[in-house]
Amino acid sequence: MTSAATPAYRRLSVGERRSQLLGVALSLFAHRAPEDVSLDDVAEAAGVSRPLVYRYFPGGKQELYEAALRSAADELELCFAEPAVGPPTERLARVLDRYLAFVDEHDTGFSALLQGGSVAETSRTTAIVDEVRRAAAQQVLFHLGVPDPGPRLRMMVRTWIAAVEAASLIWLDEGKQPPAAELRAWLVDHLVALLTVTATTDHGTARAVEALLAREAADGPVGTLARRLGPVVGGAAHLL
Amino acid sequence: MTSAATPAYRRLSVGERRSQLLGVALSLFAHRAPEDVSLDDVAEAAGVSRPLVYRYFPGGKQELYEAALRSAADELELCFAEPAVGPPTERLARVLDRYLAFVDEHDTGFSALLQGGSVAETSRTTAIVDEVRRAAAQQVLFHLGVPDPGPRLRMMVRTWIAAVEAASLIWLDEGKQPPAAELRAWLVDHLVALLTVTATTDHGTARAVEALLAREAADGPVGTLARRLGPVVGGAAHLL
Repeated sequence: MTSAATPAYRRLSVGERRSQLLGVALSLFAHRAPEDVSLDDVAEAAGVSRPLVYRYFPGGKQELYEAALRSAADELELCFAEPAVGPPTERLARVLDRYLAFVDEHDTGFSALLQGGSVAETSRTTAIVDEVRRAAAQQVLFHLGVPDPGPRLRMMVRTWIAAVEAASLIWLDEGKQPPAAELRAWLVDHLVALLTVTATTDHGTARAVEALLAREAADGPVGTLARRLGPVVGGAAHLL
Repeated sequence: MTSAATPAYRRLSVGERRSQLLGVALSLFAHRAPEDVSLDDVAEAAGVSRPLVYRYFPGGKQELYEAALRSAADELELCFAEPAVGPPTERLARVLDRYLAFVDEHDTGFSALLQGGSVAETSRTTAIVDEVRRAAAQQVLFHLGVPDPGPRLRMMVRTWIAAVEAASLIWLDEGKQPPAAELRAWLVDHLVALLTVTATTDHGTARAVEALLAREAADGPVGTLARRLGPVVGGAAHLL
């Protein structure tokens, strides 16, 4: 580990070095379970010594893992940002596209984190994941135009987010099939279906759906779903 | 800890003693997070000495926790058993009633287990939870009359189960509101909604829904949902 062999070693400032180590850790933790990443792997991939990694992250691997998770959570929350312009389901479709690209990019780490049972999982990592879930729920409610939802609509959005997570894990497990665009379209259909049935028993959701439908386009997700539903719903005529 | 003070001490056989300790552990772990249950608590509640608990569970608290979880998982899987008689959604409603009674009974332990981040969580506990999820998915598919589902229907059922779990955790978090029967009805609506939209793009699901609708009753969950949908769907007329 001489300065000649690692010319970048001295050139980085403290902040730059920390960022570099974090970036290296994030890319290692993205593609392996935390159990399968060692501090030596991080040092080697960063081209630095193990003591140098400890100087920046005295808590060792667990601290690096949590810092990488924090950084991934921030990146994911940025994916959620979408201007409040155009039909809401089309906005959410764009958010889902970015979310699925993130899942694709962090595949193994994403599975390891959400499947649980990892030694790297602590109340701190769980708190970070929960924060991301809350941010996701807030974004969905923002695009639905419901800043102050009732308990049923809030529960509905949170269960949909859990369903999206579960679908992402299954998607990774099944070799990223179906194609991301198909999965995204199904997840949007899922949300519209859930909103619709919830609106039949919850007044707050009914008002949100009314407002949503007024902002949708005939050639958008809700319009195409509505037209596809005809033949399926026809089978329920004897129940009406 | 003399035999006079604990007359039951000598009367139990090895199997009975093990069952007793397990029962005591299960009821403690049901109402507290694993962090908040000590081996002394188990010994005291069972009226035995700490060394006796270790004789039956040499792995101490972690072994007791895993044995209690195994026993709770078996109990939960028994809840899923429902004869294949009558409209499928009414059968699933009965399964959900028993499931929610289980969640109600094991509230704190259920939350601690599924929220993650607990020190008692290991790859073994995660495997037990996954086994219960698989058993739940199989039961749903059995009642839908689809023994060999395609990937989309399988994903749909698994995401619905994740949504049920998420809804249960929120329900516990919100002081068990709404009443269990109302939550159960909404979860059945959720499944019907999901089946319906999935049927619009997946042939296997479309056939399953066709068969399901033929077995449903006008006064059952699907019939009442279908009638409630009218006014909500009316708002989408401009999209058709």
